[in-house]
Amino acid sequence: MTTCNCAPIPHLPWQPRPAGDVHDAPLWRYEGNPIIGRNPAPGIARIFNSAVWPWQDGFVAVLRGEKVNGVPEIFLGHSKDGLNWQVDHDPIPFVDEEGRSFMPRYAYDPRLVRVEETYYIIWCQDFYGASIGMAKTEDFETFVRLENPFIPYNRNAVLFPRRVNGNYLLLSRPSDSGHTPFGDIFLSESPDMVYWGKHRHVMARGSVWWESVKIGAGAAPIETDEGWLLFYHGASSTCSGLVYSIGGAVLDRENPSVVRYRCENFLLTPETEYEERGFVANVCFPCAALCDGATGRIALYYGAADSVVGVAFTTVEEIVAYIKAHSVLTEQDREIGRR
Amino acid sequence: MTTCNCAPIPHLPWQPRPAGDVHDAPLWRYEGNPIIGRNPAPGIARIFNSAVWPWQDGFVAVLRGEKVNGVPEIFLGHSKDGLNWQVDHDPIPFVDEEGRSFMPRYAYDPRLVRVEETYYIIWCQDFYGASIGMAKTEDFETFVRLENPFIPYNRNAVLFPRRVNGNYLLLSRPSDSGHTPFGDIFLSESPDMVYWGKHRHVMARGSVWWESVKIGAGAAPIETDEGWLLFYHGASSTCSGLVYSIGGAVLDRENPSVVRYRCENFLLTPETEYEERGFVANVCFPCAALCDGATGRIALYYGAADSVVGVAFTTVEEIVAYIKAHSVLTEQDREIGRR
Amino acid sequence: MTTCNCAPIPHLPWQPRPAGDVHDAPLWRYEGNPIIGRNPAPGIARIFNSAVWPWQDGFVAVLRGEKVNGVPEIFLGHSKDGLNWQVDHDPIPFVDEEGRSFMPRYAYDPRLVRVEETYYIIWCQDFYGASIGMAKTEDFETFVRLENPFIPYNRNAVLFPRRVNGNYLLLSRPSDSGHTPFGDIFLSESPDMVYWGKHRHVMARGSVWWESVKIGAGAAPIETDEGWLLFYHGASSTCSGLVYSIGGAVLDRENPSVVRYRCENFLLTPETEYEERGFVANVCFPCAALCDGATGRIALYYGAADSVVGVAFTTVEEIVAYIKAHSVLTEQDREIGRR
Amino acid sequence: MTTCNCAPIPHLPWQPRPAGDVHDAPLWRYEGNPIIGRNPAPGIARIFNSAVWPWQDGFVAVLRGEKVNGVPEIFLGHSKDGLNWQVDHDPIPFVDEEGRSFMPRYAYDPRLVRVEETYYIIWCQDFYGASIGMAKTEDFETFVRLENPFIPYNRNAVLFPRRVNGNYLLLSRPSDSGHTPFGDIFLSESPDMVYWGKHRHVMARGSVWWESVKIGAGAAPIETDEGWLLFYHGASSTCSGLVYSIGGAVLDRENPSVVRYRCENFLLTPETEYEERGFVANVCFPCAALCDGATGRIALYYGAADSVVGVAFTTVEEIVAYIKAHSVLTEQDREIGRR
Amino acid sequence: MTTCNCAPIPHLPWQPRPAGDVHDAPLWRYEGNPIIGRNPAPGIARIFNSAVWPWQDGFVAVLRGEKVNGVPEIFLGHSKDGLNWQVDHDPIPFVDEEGRSFMPRYAYDPRLVRVEETYYIIWCQDFYGASIGMAKTEDFETFVRLENPFIPYNRNAVLFPRRVNGNYLLLSRPSDSGHTPFGDIFLSESPDMVYWGKHRHVMARGSVWWESVKIGAGAAPIETDEGWLLFYHGASSTCSGLVYSIGGAVLDRENPSVVRYRCENFLLTPETEYEERGFVANVCFPCAALCDGATGRIALYYGAADSVVGVAFTTVEEIVAYIKAHSVLTEQDREIGRR
Amino acid sequence: MTTCNCAPIPHLPWQPRPAGDVHDAPLWRYEGNPIIGRNPAPGIARIFNSAVWPWQDGFVAVLRGEKVNGVPEIFLGHSKDGLNWQVDHDPIPFVDEEGRSFMPRYAYDPRLVRVEETYYIIWCQDFYGASIGMAKTEDFETFVRLENPFIPYNRNAVLFPRRVNGNYLLLSRPSDSGHTPFGDIFLSESPDMVYWGKHRHVMARGSVWWESVKIGAGAAPIETDEGWLLFYHGASSTCSGLVYSIGGAVLDRENPSVVRYRCENFLLTPETEYEERGFVANVCFPCAALCDGATGRIALYYGAADSVVGVAFTTVEEIVAYIKAHSVLTEQDREIGRR
Repeated sequence: MTTCNCAPIPHLPWQPRPAGDVHDAPLWRYEGNPIIGRNPAPGIARIFNSAVWPWQDGFVAVLRGEKVNGVPEIFLGHSKDGLNWQVDHDPIPFVDEEGRSFMPRYAYDPRLVRVEETYYIIWCQDFYGASIGMAKTEDFETFVRLENPFIPYNRNAVLFPRRVNGNYLLLSRPSDSGHTPFGDIFLSESPDMVYWGKHRHVMARGSVWWESVKIGAGAAPIETDEGWLLFYHGASSTCSGLVYSIGGAVLDRENPSVVRYRCENFLLTPETEYEERGFVANVCFPCAALCDGATGRIALYYGAADSVVGVAFTTVEEIVAYIKAHSVLTEQDREIGRR
Repeated sequence: MTTCNCAPIPHLPWQPRPAGDVHDAPLWRYEGNPIIGRNPAPGIARIFNSAVWPWQDGFVAVLRGEKVNGVPEIFLGHSKDGLNWQVDHDPIPFVDEEGRSFMPRYAYDPRLVRVEETYYIIWCQDFYGASIGMAKTEDFETFVRLENPFIPYNRNAVLFPRRVNGNYLLLSRPSDSGHTPFGDIFLSESPDMVYWGKHRHVMARGSVWWESVKIGAGAAPIETDEGWLLFYHGASSTCSGLVYSIGGAVLDRENPSVVRYRCENFLLTPETEYEERGFVANVCFPCAALCDGATGRIALYYGAADSVVGVAFTTVEEIVAYIKAHSVLTEQDREIGRR
Repeated sequence: MTTCNCAPIPHLPWQPRPAGDVHDAPLWRYEGNPIIGRNPAPGIARIFNSAVWPWQDGFVAVLRGEKVNGVPEIFLGHSKDGLNWQVDHDPIPFVDEEGRSFMPRYAYDPRLVRVEETYYIIWCQDFYGASIGMAKTEDFETFVRLENPFIPYNRNAVLFPRRVNGNYLLLSRPSDSGHTPFGDIFLSESPDMVYWGKHRHVMARGSVWWESVKIGAGAAPIETDEGWLLFYHGASSTCSGLVYSIGGAVLDRENPSVVRYRCENFLLTPETEYEERGFVANVCFPCAALCDGATGRIALYYGAADSVVGVAFTTVEEIVAYIKAHSVLTEQDREIGRR
Repeated sequence: MTTCNCAPIPHLPWQPRPAGDVHDAPLWRYEGNPIIGRNPAPGIARIFNSAVWPWQDGFVAVLRGEKVNGVPEIFLGHSKDGLNWQVDHDPIPFVDEEGRSFMPRYAYDPRLVRVEETYYIIWCQDFYGASIGMAKTEDFETFVRLENPFIPYNRNAVLFPRRVNGNYLLLSRPSDSGHTPFGDIFLSESPDMVYWGKHRHVMARGSVWWESVKIGAGAAPIETDEGWLLFYHGASSTCSGLVYSIGGAVLDRENPSVVRYRCENFLLTPETEYEERGFVANVCFPCAALCDGATGRIALYYGAADSVVGVAFTTVEEIVAYIKAHSVLTEQDREIGRR
Repeated sequence: MTTCNCAPIPHLPWQPRPAGDVHDAPLWRYEGNPIIGRNPAPGIARIFNSAVWPWQDGFVAVLRGEKVNGVPEIFLGHSKDGLNWQVDHDPIPFVDEEGRSFMPRYAYDPRLVRVEETYYIIWCQDFYGASIGMAKTEDFETFVRLENPFIPYNRNAVLFPRRVNGNYLLLSRPSDSGHTPFGDIFLSESPDMVYWGKHRHVMARGSVWWESVKIGAGAAPIETDEGWLLFYHGASSTCSGLVYSIGGAVLDRENPSVVRYRCENFLLTPETEYEERGFVANVCFPCAALCDGATGRIALYYGAADSVVGVAFTTVEEIVAYIKAHSVLTEQDREIGRR
Repeated sequence: MTTCNCAPIPHLPWQPRPAGDVHDAPLWRYEGNPIIGRNPAPGIARIFNSAVWPWQDGFVAVLRGEKVNGVPEIFLGHSKDGLNWQVDHDPIPFVDEEGRSFMPRYAYDPRLVRVEETYYIIWCQDFYGASIGMAKTEDFETFVRLENPFIPYNRNAVLFPRRVNGNYLLLSRPSDSGHTPFGDIFLSESPDMVYWGKHRHVMARGSVWWESVKIGAGAAPIETDEGWLLFYHGASSTCSGLVYSIGGAVLDRENPSVVRYRCENFLLTPETEYEERGFVANVCFPCAALCDGATGRIALYYGAADSVVGVAFTTVEEIVAYIKAHSVLTEQDREIGRR
């Protein structure tokens, strides 16, 4: 039985799997979806692709809010139960090391990860092209920008929740500056969150159809005794645009560029109206997965149709078992990665 | 307080803004939308992107009707209240100056504008590529084709409702002959509706995300004491196709190539099922805006999802105030336009 | 009055045309659509684009099943009434002439046609690119692969239900290996189902808008005294992807590369939610049309939105009359085809 | 025998056709080509695609000069014999009607035509995209900009050397703003060089291979008793880029949108090293054709490989006879042009 | 020592390898290249990509002649020595079985192969897209068109000079209808030159850089005791277009879809001015290889820069030894080919 | 007068500027160009885009050698005078830290820079896409691979010849994995040649036409008292492919992401036959610039037409004066670079 190396989150949202669920994978939608709908606050048209972390006796979220001018920015949200959210009216006020305002022109698809006593926000922004931006906070009041980890073009960067072998670890997806018709996941290391190196290839797109165009890390990995449980997105190309599904893999605990298990099936694919209809139809885009160390319950937050936020549930035990049972690995998955 | 220079339209359709409307901009949908649905007449599969003008004690419309062979033509419609429409079974029978039948191969996205005692219909057609066609009528029985104003490639031409400085004014959008991944609005002048010149650039695409791919004039401008109120469409690119929203600007009264105010927010973006699902998902495409000079009420007609017709309401005062309050101008907007 | 040269199918599914149907063409949807929905069997996410043939006292179907890894395979289905289906859990086990397993890597969009005493299954597969695969069975227990009829790239092959002038006839659509932005229907002959030649062009795309991108044969042709009734699909290009509609033509009985009638109107186009929303929005894709020789009733099976299966009904008499009444032919249609 | 309606140019450059010339068409290269080579003046890297007109006792030229920063501008050149040229160091100083400097950002492919007592320079420039610019001069000292005749996108505009039926006539080629993979020639009229209308299609690309991608008017038409003799360029697409050849046609004298003869053969195609090697390999691009009314001799100036200037010779009688002898017309050529 | 199964050709052109030749592969250019230059006959601008066969006491050739209208047709040429050629003024007059004129619209890249007592000409033509055309002759006076072997899209078909296991064998390259950015070689069989089947994959593009875009059979295979010696072309992509080099392989004698040796190096790549400069720069395109059975000498004819014809020499012994010494095979090369 | 901070190189190749040189910029070609021609060693078809550094009493070079299979690898060359070169027969044998062979699949466009006592070789290779590879040597016998500095996609990385503020500095150009139609130069820092960060934008493409598509660092910067002198390449797009010219800039000495001067003119553009004709026509691609600290003489090595190597000469004083005299800076050039 798989167990996780996570702190308990006693107030984690939860709903058991409905009886008679015909889906293959043990990942089921919250019946109250979407939990954040259209026009959630004045001047914000859509919130989606957002990340959540426990904070004090509730939860905090970094939210991709697309304003009524269409420009995305990152907003802070607070919630007691992880399902009902209050959204700040203004974007998160990033500052530089001297405390001066230091805002990206726009920012989207944020992730939120705690490492040691610090919370890191990672997003995609313009740095002469699509690139990764980063900030840190300890109190969710002051948010200090860090050096951008990479030169362009990159998206979907996700930090590991602890150092491994003394270094910080970051997954990311080299991209182009448009809609990017390709994309694999890479791993990079840093001793100090300033300089990055020892880049390794983790997983390529394309082992099966649902993820044959590109893949990107979704939620911060969850440490289990089988390895790091990674929820990621995979995109397929149709003659009416891309379809984004949610996939799962388990990375080696000591050397996460090695994939130990990778599920050949998607775990969740657009089926409901709020996933298939919206600003961008047919998108399920995971950004956060919280795991209660006491029960192994997982709440997965994902953006739907680039319009709203949904939640799905599973348990560490069930989902790792399913991933292992349907694991198909390529040579590229198994290896540390050429350089 | 902004007032308009329009004739009264006492029978203009109207519905007040719903209490609790959470949208940012003061433009609200008619609850009875869509007012023209699928298969509205034998042999016509879809009506959308259509324009309306007061006529006698009711209204007349030029309708983009996509026939069951998929080919668009322009049909005439009549209505007493502007909401319930009777659609002619045959397309408008255009003739040349000698009264002989003179039909374009196909025609789409018509506009309808009265200047002095004449009604002008302007549309897009094939002229060895996508181009502007024009006709005039005084009685909605005889429709005489005019010279095409431009060589290819062009779309979304809209006439001003009066001459300015003695000349007719026409907005248009240079295009290519495909799906046109670019597009700005230009202004051209004519002393006689035959020869056109003094072309000026009005507004570029791209000041914010929702209109970053292309823009095009929508409804004939409404003259107000702040300038010409222009509803236009702007398109954004997603990995599942384009999204068309409705925007607003106010052009200088004497020199309309100068933009006085331009709203950085969209005024209305696809959200309802009839806007997000259809032949072309995610399209709100304005073609006419009628203003009652007595009350300042505006009824905006727009095509939805290239499948049906919707109406939205606002008032001159509210919408101009909103546009001014959120106006962001570029150098290109402010200037008369290089040549 | 048109009659057909078909065997009686007394148990053919049927539902009369609803009173007040406003559609132009006499082809109406079954009210119980979709007849096969999402997640119809464990490990199968979607069934669509599938073909049916009478078998014993019921029906048998070859089904495009897209598994939870997104890979399509062909599954067998059985039904008593042609509306309620049991789906096999495993794909059809193809073998070579010696009876050894001989599976394509993947297979999709199958057709099923009986010629003399043999049932032929035809599909699209990888043969160093998109190509046609074929197998035969006489008992729906043993399925023997045949030679691939063509070198790449090809899709949408459909066999005629009897030999003409001693040869087997096959319609197909030369393609590329991607989403194929072009496509016409060709006819090929074979004396033995091994060697193919005398290729002739049947119909080009593009005579009207709904089919201007590409066309492909849908159902096995139905022999009538006016010629071979062919249901096919046609695709149109919008700025949010392709739209697939269903069209109809009648091919010459003796020389089917000659088109005798071709309906300029689509017979059915995406309008319902199950056709406009799904894995690939806006797709109606016909794969089989069963005709009861006693009554002339036709049940047309089509895939909807690459997600589910629908049925529509008509009669030989009504549909041929409609196709004739709206027939528009090009030179290419009328001729045998250059070579 | 064809005669021309041109003034005598006794000092026109001339060299008889070499004995044993194996080319098909009676258009032969000057042996001293290129007449303007690389680096012809400080700061100018290349001169090509340039036009010439008689002036006083010699000739004047408007030259496309590509500076050492790669930006093209129009320079004035003077020559006694039409073969040896002095090039101004600074670009032509265009002014507006008040005499203030009014320079385009860049300008290329100029033409030069005298109508009545005025000399017109026409070029391609940026006007929110590739467009036509124009200026006039009477003394080659003051160059006054005129209104741009069209909204974008357009290139290769050429004026007729006299009014026809009271109106100025302008050939042009609607384009896109990139390398433009398409293009036909249109005709437009103006009573005053300010307002333009009555646009008609003249000739389409594509009747044979050497001109199947796009065509564009080259030299100002020469009036002959058979009609207007037009030298134009046609482009063909290869897997190493476009190839530009020189073609010829004769347009109707009274209604030049009607093509009377159009030569199916190119008249001259890249063959020499200075045409096949350079900044853009394989380009012969005609911009001016001077005709001596006394002898019918023609000197054709053309850009070669976007790097140098060449001259070729023929006579009105020979070239019109050749065009007539090899004329192939399409329906589009023969007609006035739909609208 | 490798020997060939060819008839003697005592008058085969020959020139020994120059002393000090620094090239790697034993294939050297004729010093008199190009043997057919520009404008070789009235109305023909370029001859290239042409094939040769012994005939009576000299040679006959099928020549790709690009006329002065740019359209390619196939011309007959005669030569005593294989180096100096007389070219017919008119294209080869193809007829149908009844002797009526039956010309393709255009035809290019012909090959010429004798099988038993008949000479077959194979070319590329329009058949609703790029496809293979064929004709036969026994006297080079009457040329009877055969059925096109395939539906579109295909190019570079080459017949084997004898039947194998009773069937005719044809190599070809499935293509698209444009410049085709991909392409592998396939093998097809026919009992009668009318019906074709048993298609097998022979070789894929891409094993090394010089042939990574596409490959196509060049000359009719030469039978040796090691197998069928095949000269083919391979294309590489640069930022200034494609580069075509000449490669070599040896196919299995009994089952030529199996590759026995395939040289990882090109045998000849564009280096001379007549190969690097012309209508399409950087093309060496082999179409015929004649082998003298008495000496093993080979004369290879190839088109250069789509402008002229060159010859290169080698011997069976040297070239097969070189191919074997540098052979690198993939799995796809070694196998008969999936279907 | 500008002076450089370089060691003396008394044996640097040199040739004074020819009298009467008409070029604008003070950079002139060596009359003996190309110094390395085609087929320079057995099995190597072309050497180009190569870098040179002084070594012992002569010079050493890292050479891009394209083998007769078209695959590029890096070869070592030795020369006494920097003009006549001996090329190793085998590629440089890279090893990992343990001394085991560690070869990239292929490698191209190498640079060579000495920092302190170590020589660094930097190149482009496959790392799941086009990326930067690196190795170090102290004796040109053992070459130890370093960590790849970046995740894909990147090209044209160049190291500074000394640490600045304690960190190593690396210029590079984010790319895609194809022919990359875009590209700016970035600067990255590292304390240890393993971890990289503090990425800053240096210069964008596009300030003038000759460099409007993309730019890339060429030679290792030369330290002068005005700043770091950088030779780089810029590409322009024509309808026959890209044209690569050589440009120059001076970067701030302490903060090289700030551009102090940038020459709006190219310094050298393809003009000679060996630059305009070859495997890739129209390429001048600088990879090394050696400066003699005693005289300020510079020898610039550049690849020509992807086929051969050329040398050009200048002096620090002249070239910096020219760059300053023609400097045009954008805001992006002047600033440190957003992040």
